[in-house]
Amino acid sequence: MSDQLRVTVLAGGFGGARMAHGFELLGERVELSVVVNTGDDLELHGLSISPDLDTVMYTLAGLANDQTGWGVRDETWSASEMLERYGEPSWFRLGDRDLATHLVRTAWLRKGERLTQVTEYMRRELGVRARLLPMSDQPVRTKLRTAHGWLDFQDYFVRRSHADEVLEVSFDGIANAHATAEVVGAVVSADLVVIAPSNPYVSVAPILALRGLLDALRSSQAPVVAVSPIVAGQAVRGPAAQMLSSIGGLPPTCVGIATHYAKGYPGLVDVLVLDHADADQAEAVAREGARPLVTRTLIGDDDDRRRLAQEILGLAGAD
Amino acid sequence: MSDQLRVTVLAGGFGGARMAHGFELLGERVELSVVVNTGDDLELHGLSISPDLDTVMYTLAGLANDQTGWGVRDETWSASEMLERYGEPSWFRLGDRDLATHLVRTAWLRKGERLTQVTEYMRRELGVRARLLPMSDQPVRTKLRTAHGWLDFQDYFVRRSHADEVLEVSFDGIANAHATAEVVGAVVSADLVVIAPSNPYVSVAPILALRGLLDALRSSQAPVVAVSPIVAGQAVRGPAAQMLSSIGGLPPTCVGIATHYAKGYPGLVDVLVLDHADADQAEAVAREGARPLVTRTLIGDDDDRRRLAQEILGLAGAD
Repeated sequence: MSDQLRVTVLAGGFGGARMAHGFELLGERVELSVVVNTGDDLELHGLSISPDLDTVMYTLAGLANDQTGWGVRDETWSASEMLERYGEPSWFRLGDRDLATHLVRTAWLRKGERLTQVTEYMRRELGVRARLLPMSDQPVRTKLRTAHGWLDFQDYFVRRSHADEVLEVSFDGIANAHATAEVVGAVVSADLVVIAPSNPYVSVAPILALRGLLDALRSSQAPVVAVSPIVAGQAVRGPAAQMLSSIGGLPPTCVGIATHYAKGYPGLVDVLVLDHADADQAEAVAREGARPLVTRTLIGDDDDRRRLAQEILGLAGAD
Repeated sequence: MSDQLRVTVLAGGFGGARMAHGFELLGERVELSVVVNTGDDLELHGLSISPDLDTVMYTLAGLANDQTGWGVRDETWSASEMLERYGEPSWFRLGDRDLATHLVRTAWLRKGERLTQVTEYMRRELGVRARLLPMSDQPVRTKLRTAHGWLDFQDYFVRRSHADEVLEVSFDGIANAHATAEVVGAVVSADLVVIAPSNPYVSVAPILALRGLLDALRSSQAPVVAVSPIVAGQAVRGPAAQMLSSIGGLPPTCVGIATHYAKGYPGLVDVLVLDHADADQAEAVAREGARPLVTRTLIGDDDDRRRLAQEILGLAGAD
């Protein structure tokens, strides 16, 4: 047998893509599976759009727009301009290259393919080595309760620039959805499970809420390593810090992250990776039951991504 | 009542769009309806594409690419490049702006709207005054028999650059299709019916083959004026000249056009408009039963289009 390590990353979009990319960059030493949140998915202009899947896929394919953190590099916006001329909603910006992804996905789904199969086909065409696994083939839609009532995820996140305080999160369809056989297999057979530095409430929680997922994690012998999405009291991107406070009643810190996982998923997280900036929280993190690993968690460029992945890889079999 | 003249143009793409544009440019004096061939329509990447409708719509909206004769001005091709990366067929080039049209149309059709309603909505958004009427709301698909067997229209026309000799034409679905109420209304109430300088076999014939269409034309009192798509023995664009010979056994001339209409649709065409270059054929055209009108029929720019429309308009009520 090979001496490859099987790594399974649970991922949202931005942080998930960058963390997964680190392992992709380690090459043949890692057999990588990335389980991606689909709670952010939406239908627009008749297209099935999976923003987190796309961010991960573009990043691993080397096509991501590193400036924006979403979408495709060297993008153009002609279709979007023309859609506006037809009076179509324009708040969710669709680049022309990105549009091709939604077209291909939508056409395959309409032919009756599972999202898992469609994604497998697409990542291969783009030359991505890792297996990209949508968390479920059934639709799950994240909704957020705010002072303006319940909002669809992209309405909250993009149209309203995640400016509203979120009081509650729910996952429509979660009762009828289950983790795919591919996802369960990737978790059960993993040597290492990594919870990416993604928003715990809207990126990681939908994955963990799926029928079959926590059981699979608990039946696995692999250590579970979470990377804190909070550095120095702020989310690297997005509303994770505010949500820790408004939903969890927790401080917007690494300790808050540790407490969130410890309370919500007792015994799940073995190691919490925190940034040097938060080294002083290591002891408090440990008191929440997760072994702290202090290192550099900012992974804007390939070197940083590769290095962090390499460090986390060292934890495989260590638990 | 108004002193507007009601003009109904039967149109394919290239010549149909330019002829219709001439009447659109006459402004309020004309109440223009354009009945457009949908036999060239296709489904690609899950999208419902109506090339002739789009060429007419873009031209009347002032958005047409006059260099290519199809598609939108200032077009970009990013989606197309990305579709190729996914291994999608790329022989039918879809510009990014053009793609928006197909997206909007497809989304409305999937919601159950008739193509007629969708087209009405779209032309209004683009500021087109004329009523754009797809010939039918039921699918009709033009097929062409060649030495390589029966080909789909766009396969023949675009992929194979209409290089094959066409031996026979058929219209799949024609038995179950009918002219829409809007089309019949536009024909019956017209003061003038114009058969655009479009290919008689693949642009005009599908329209005339629709159940209800010839009856409507015959019950109308309006003169029917056809503009020859052949000038000096050549089609202005496309394979009309070859088809006159290979399908009709007719000379590739204005006389051939006159004979085609006289034999296929006895008594239908009252006036045939031919170019100065073919003035010597006027008598022979007359012998086929159509009154010849000799003028400049090349309508590449707005002035020529407006002038030809104006001349044809003078024939209304003259029959």
